[in-house]
Amino acid sequence: MFKAVENVRTVASLGGGPIGAGWAAHFLARGYKVNSYIHKLDEKEKFEKIVLIAWESLKKLGLSENASLKNLALSNDLDKTIYEVDFIQESVPEVLDTKQKLYKLLGNLVSPNIVIASSTSGLPITEIQSLCNTPERTIIGHPFNPPYLLPLVEVVGGEKTNSKAIDWACNFYKKAGKEPLKLEKEIPGFVATRLQEAIWREALHMVKEGEATPEQIDLALKYGPGPRIAVQGQCMAFHVACGEGGMATNLDQFGPSLKLPWTRLRAPPMTKKLREKLVTSCKKMSNGQNFYDMVKQRDKSIAAVLNAIRFSE
Amino acid sequence: MFKAVENVRTVASLGGGPIGAGWAAHFLARGYKVNSYIHKLDEKEKFEKIVLIAWESLKKLGLSENASLKNLALSNDLDKTIYEVDFIQESVPEVLDTKQKLYKLLGNLVSPNIVIASSTSGLPITEIQSLCNTPERTIIGHPFNPPYLLPLVEVVGGEKTNSKAIDWACNFYKKAGKEPLKLEKEIPGFVATRLQEAIWREALHMVKEGEATPEQIDLALKYGPGPRIAVQGQCMAFHVACGEGGMATNLDQFGPSLKLPWTRLRAPPMTKKLREKLVTSCKKMSNGQNFYDMVKQRDKSIAAVLNAIRFSE
Repeated sequence: MFKAVENVRTVASLGGGPIGAGWAAHFLARGYKVNSYIHKLDEKEKFEKIVLIAWESLKKLGLSENASLKNLALSNDLDKTIYEVDFIQESVPEVLDTKQKLYKLLGNLVSPNIVIASSTSGLPITEIQSLCNTPERTIIGHPFNPPYLLPLVEVVGGEKTNSKAIDWACNFYKKAGKEPLKLEKEIPGFVATRLQEAIWREALHMVKEGEATPEQIDLALKYGPGPRIAVQGQCMAFHVACGEGGMATNLDQFGPSLKLPWTRLRAPPMTKKLREKLVTSCKKMSNGQNFYDMVKQRDKSIAAVLNAIRFSE
Repeated sequence: MFKAVENVRTVASLGGGPIGAGWAAHFLARGYKVNSYIHKLDEKEKFEKIVLIAWESLKKLGLSENASLKNLALSNDLDKTIYEVDFIQESVPEVLDTKQKLYKLLGNLVSPNIVIASSTSGLPITEIQSLCNTPERTIIGHPFNPPYLLPLVEVVGGEKTNSKAIDWACNFYKKAGKEPLKLEKEIPGFVATRLQEAIWREALHMVKEGEATPEQIDLALKYGPGPRIAVQGQCMAFHVACGEGGMATNLDQFGPSLKLPWTRLRAPPMTKKLREKLVTSCKKMSNGQNFYDMVKQRDKSIAAVLNAIRFSE
């Protein structure tokens, strides 16, 4: 049904904002031809500015063979942009009506074996695809800003999505240098945004209550959990923080504190089943390494990150 | 009342776990003499292992002049450990009764012009200091694990703390290569842990509901918001993510989504006052840079962080 991912040559990126331009830069850096659609020609200057800024960092991370800014075709003619492309990444404004109309149009114009992915961070794909007459190949492919640097793409389908389109997109994103995260369910905000949103809402409460200023919140994150989250996420951060007992020790020692008002978010009860899920996953992720091996690896990465930040400022 | 921070020569680190050992490593790397107290001599081996692992990364970050592992004196004799030291960092187990008894003892043994800081992440200093007869110089100095790498130290006093002890500790930590964050109020979990705890609680809900596995949560954080939080925190991350309109655009565009169930944490209402606080702070933090300057700086740092993680694995 779908073309082999290694045969994808041309990608369309729809949308002239930082996300659309960012996707264009990413695909260009990975050696694809990119057709970018902007709504109005006066968006061109800002679009190109973002692509050029992105290119500086992309060069430092390493460009693919054949990667070139010359492979970008920018246009406000939608038909031309989507003509014979192998994949479409849609990043138009977050307005349901706008997206529905666009998907209705694309449903008729684009061959049904071409996957269309929406960058939306909040609209359900089931609603986005509702007016499209070929919805089976429409999915969410949600990036993190800046999409040319942060590797995550959350992938999920709607009610009418064919699971093969989801698998194809995961393979394609992987091939194109991203880290796809295939979600089991479409939950509001997906996984990464929900986690980030939890930080953000707690931060808003703090600012509101006069407990911390935005400056203090950013300082706390940058000099505290930030570098560790970048290196380990949160589950493994706790697994490696608690000595040789790992996640089990963490849950047994800090489990009771889940009842304390350490954020405005109430925690679920720490049942035996939930404990088991966390402990088992962390053991699996440890991949046979002992506590001291993991501490060494974590420290090496955090030290590198701290030096990286220091010397890039 | 207190010694000038530049005259601090010897620091006592009380506690044989990863935090106590981590603090010892940090102060050694900054050129101090360190007296470490461990409860039992059989903790010695693990303690030294942590210090040696820490030393590898500390060397990469750069040691201070005169920094040497030879400046460490390890003992299970409390009197000897605290004899004539210039500062005490306490990291004994998180048991209120244990800490209260220790502070009662220290209150009599240690000259009242020596600041005693607790690494506690959850116990209120007002309660820790309640049995101490010289409580004015006792404070919270809460580090993030690993304390020899992550620079943050949250500083706050209790009911009986003298504000001069807090200011002295902030100056000393700064001098000793840390990033002190002086809190206005003692709130449960302080600032950084509350933010981290918000992520953690949302993650627990997801695992419980089968929405994401611990592996997926860590992948989402590491490849998504993690590197950006390490570089920008969260307020500035949003300020720079939203094009030239910055935080104001972010709040106006995504403000309504605060009412959506994008985490189990309910957000405060986005009042004009709260909006103003965020917008003003972000403008101030921008320090006159325009959107494109900030994008360039962010990207340079994120690219450096991504390369750092890649080449340290």
